[in-house]
Amino acid sequence: MSSFDQTPGVSPREAATQGFVFNHTMLRVKDIRASLDFYTRVLGFSLIDRRDHDEAKFSLYFLAYLDDGERVPEEADARREWLARRRGVLELTHNHGSETDGTVYHDGNSDPRGFGHICVAVPDIRAACARFEDLGVAFQKRLTDGRMKSIAFIKDPDGYWVEIIQPTGLN
Amino acid sequence: MSSFDQTPGVSPREAATQGFVFNHTMLRVKDIRASLDFYTRVLGFSLIDRRDHDEAKFSLYFLAYLDDGERVPEEADARREWLARRRGVLELTHNHGSETDGTVYHDGNSDPRGFGHICVAVPDIRAACARFEDLGVAFQKRLTDGRMKSIAFIKDPDGYWVEIIQPTGLN
Repeated sequence: MSSFDQTPGVSPREAATQGFVFNHTMLRVKDIRASLDFYTRVLGFSLIDRRDHDEAKFSLYFLAYLDDGERVPEEADARREWLARRRGVLELTHNHGSETDGTVYHDGNSDPRGFGHICVAVPDIRAACARFEDLGVAFQKRLTDGRMKSIAFIKDPDGYWVEIIQPTGLN
Repeated sequence: MSSFDQTPGVSPREAATQGFVFNHTMLRVKDIRASLDFYTRVLGFSLIDRRDHDEAKFSLYFLAYLDDGERVPEEADARREWLARRRGVLELTHNHGSETDGTVYHDGNSDPRGFGHICVAVPDIRAACARFEDLGVAFQKRLTDGRMKSIAFIKDPDGYWVEIIQPTGLN
């Protein structure tokens, strides 16, 4: 149930969609090592699966935030099922060779626009942003920029925007 | 812990990232009514928040899969916090007037490439795809197309790709 059920276009949930899960979002990345460094070291994601398609010259990397004490299943089929049942997975696609062949991916925020950003919620946004500064992370919008003083945007190695929010109000 | 910790670029999780949540993915949409119809009626998402910024001429719509019996908090601050703590939220941005002013958004899968797709996991992919066919949904890749017979891609009203997977193996 939602209090927005009267919004034009909105339909009540059909039984045929029971069990559907918004599992992941996929972004292409130029330099997978730089992206894994950013998403694990800077943002704290864990790499939870990797699938190499050598004949087609691409590899898929799946990242997520693990719960305390949670472990990635070792067995491939069990891991695939466990992964597919989760919410909040980030899939990075690395086309082999893109890190050296001049590939530049498009962040979606200049023409032609489309995709905008992903968003990570953090318990203490001021502390998180101070740490990002210390780590030399690129900012699209600092907390102090613009009108919205409670959100920030940092940029991943390809320039994709990562919104940073804090669930609770800032004092 | 992950069995992929030795992958180049991967770092162990730093304590400073405790409590981080991959909250949402944002896509711009041309016709919000068509998109809400697609994501609620076809895919079973619920609209869980709406934020109108009339002076800046845009509105944000947040969608997610609710758990059985779960209700959206009525009070705005409580709802915002509840929303920000979730995984697996889809944010749709509607720039007012885009539905009639010739705006065409870019799906990221032709040059300039970047964003690839979002993915919804379903309990029975054959039943889900048969229903999508019945509903007249556009397919990028049917189960029977190409080499990968266990996944499909449908297209939302803006042409963004939505991968459809089934967590368990197909018989």
